[in-house]
Amino acid sequence: MKSMSAFETRIQGLKTLGKKAGINAFLVVSEKNMRYLAGFSTLSMERFAGIVIPVATGTPVVIVPRLEKTKAEEKSAFNEIRSYSDSESPASLLNKVIKELKLEKATFGVEGTLPFKFCNMLTAKSLKTKAIDASPFFSQLRRIKSENELKLIEKAAGFVGDGIKAGIDFIKPGVTELAISCQIERTIKESGGESVPFCIVLSGANSALPHGETSNRKVGEKDIVLMDVGAVCEGYCGDLTRTVFVGGSTEKEKNIYDIVSNAHDEAVKSVKSGITAEEVDSAARNVIEKAGYSEYFTHRTGHGLGLDVHEEPYIVQGNRMELAPGMAFTIEPGIYFFGKFGVRIEDNVTVTRRNSKMLSNMSTERLII
Amino acid sequence: MKSMSAFETRIQGLKTLGKKAGINAFLVVSEKNMRYLAGFSTLSMERFAGIVIPVATGTPVVIVPRLEKTKAEEKSAFNEIRSYSDSESPASLLNKVIKELKLEKATFGVEGTLPFKFCNMLTAKSLKTKAIDASPFFSQLRRIKSENELKLIEKAAGFVGDGIKAGIDFIKPGVTELAISCQIERTIKESGGESVPFCIVLSGANSALPHGETSNRKVGEKDIVLMDVGAVCEGYCGDLTRTVFVGGSTEKEKNIYDIVSNAHDEAVKSVKSGITAEEVDSAARNVIEKAGYSEYFTHRTGHGLGLDVHEEPYIVQGNRMELAPGMAFTIEPGIYFFGKFGVRIEDNVTVTRRNSKMLSNMSTERLII
Repeated sequence: MKSMSAFETRIQGLKTLGKKAGINAFLVVSEKNMRYLAGFSTLSMERFAGIVIPVATGTPVVIVPRLEKTKAEEKSAFNEIRSYSDSESPASLLNKVIKELKLEKATFGVEGTLPFKFCNMLTAKSLKTKAIDASPFFSQLRRIKSENELKLIEKAAGFVGDGIKAGIDFIKPGVTELAISCQIERTIKESGGESVPFCIVLSGANSALPHGETSNRKVGEKDIVLMDVGAVCEGYCGDLTRTVFVGGSTEKEKNIYDIVSNAHDEAVKSVKSGITAEEVDSAARNVIEKAGYSEYFTHRTGHGLGLDVHEEPYIVQGNRMELAPGMAFTIEPGIYFFGKFGVRIEDNVTVTRRNSKMLSNMSTERLII
Repeated sequence: MKSMSAFETRIQGLKTLGKKAGINAFLVVSEKNMRYLAGFSTLSMERFAGIVIPVATGTPVVIVPRLEKTKAEEKSAFNEIRSYSDSESPASLLNKVIKELKLEKATFGVEGTLPFKFCNMLTAKSLKTKAIDASPFFSQLRRIKSENELKLIEKAAGFVGDGIKAGIDFIKPGVTELAISCQIERTIKESGGESVPFCIVLSGANSALPHGETSNRKVGEKDIVLMDVGAVCEGYCGDLTRTVFVGGSTEKEKNIYDIVSNAHDEAVKSVKSGITAEEVDSAARNVIEKAGYSEYFTHRTGHGLGLDVHEEPYIVQGNRMELAPGMAFTIEPGIYFFGKFGVRIEDNVTVTRRNSKMLSNMSTERLII
């Protein structure tokens, strides 16, 4: 299904940003930006694939290896598709397209990640092109989500919720973190999640490691289990964390859970258009600070969600970016006692005109299994 | 554990190649090449990390974000480690290092994947450096494995074998491809495999899709199941495929299995130092051609294995690269009847001085579950 208007709007937005910056054309090759701008992508690391987007006049031209031609024709939002066979040179084809579009002397906006070998094709000696890093423009467009994009993040967050619920049902003393992780991943994929970029299960003292890895550790009779899981729906990511208790919790654990839960709630409540990203971080951080645990909250409150699982806006001290309707991000405060235990609660939220809307829908109540 | 000599040998090899090509220094930033050359890596997509390697004199200098400094000091094979904090510019530090090494006018060999933003740092206006694509030199070094590297591939292939065996034990009518896949992945991780880059389970007509994806399809009473699985051990990949029958096989299926098995055996037997990569492909292809099924063997016979799951040498028609001791690759012929069924058998092998040695160790006998 080709939804021309959404993609045309995005291309138009990019052109407007380019025009202001003196950019004559864009070359886009990254999987995520291609998908965002043309509804179609390919992993162009081995073979070149990209979109040339002239800023002033003309329509985008998609260049793909012959192998990907049918897929591009089916899925690309733009009809101008050119392909090269394995015996032809993608450099020659790109050169030809640039000349046809009269962009031989153009300043091209490119991605900061553009591989050297592809940049060389763009700035070949037979051309007088110039390349400049236009990464901020892509982020600027992508950080405001459409209704449809928000629905996909919501759906992805729903998959994660189903997965974590299945994980919770599966937890009992003696099962390993890896077995719980497999159960979650399988549930998400069986529900229709297109992939599971991460599925971290940490138990006992492992839960105190914000970058810990799922291990063979068995859940104990009295234990804590933290699950931080991502899922993808049509390219868009959801990302939730839940921490549960097995066989009861100590007063301290209970207390810490409630503090993190309050920090989470206050941050969610603070979200509205016009405040800065760091104000949301402060809303969570203040709760934890007042409780006397600020030094144990060792990371930012959240990150944007979209085609990337980490993107703008970053909910962190120092980020004065103003929140605007359509932004979507995680709220994920945590408190970690190294060698003992950690608690994190993570949900997904979007900014609306009035205030905010949850994109995830799972209880945050303290749960004892 | 720092094995200086192995890394020094690699750096020396790179310098020799660079000297011949008029390269004065290398800048290496990719995860795999950093790991290969310095025993240490970091995902340098968000923050810059890299190694500057002067060709004529001087030792390699490792540049990392402050956050990664301790890890670099522990793991890097080279002692010269420089770091920058979040408030400092990696570009300034790189600039400074280049000037200290008197490489302001150097021709730098870089990776074809070097991101545009990092290339800009290297070729800043205050320098007179030049960058050229040195990708083939990295491949040339990496395609010949040391004894230690071969042991790691063998260990990784062992993990895959354990996984597939657990998958086979788990298969019965009614279980889904996804459930089998989870069982395999979990087994590999529980055995100590550091990651499972892919774990593809295809049943029934899905087995005829060489690029099929694991689905919710349930294994039938009489069915075929193809498992193509990768595992990683200390960075090195193993990659095996097995195809098994559930509840019996037809004469045709049996016959096709035997042809693929013969093609696999002939290709393995053909491997020795001095013959070309395409001759190994021909050894498999000839068996399938003689049996009248050449048009159903739609892919190459194999690919190199190492830090990447696909690297040189590619076992494909047209590749006249001569096999040499220490090369390691897959042998994976297949026959696919679209809409019906497919069979693939994949093992891992290395070239020795005399002939070859299997790196995987799992029966290829036709198996009915």
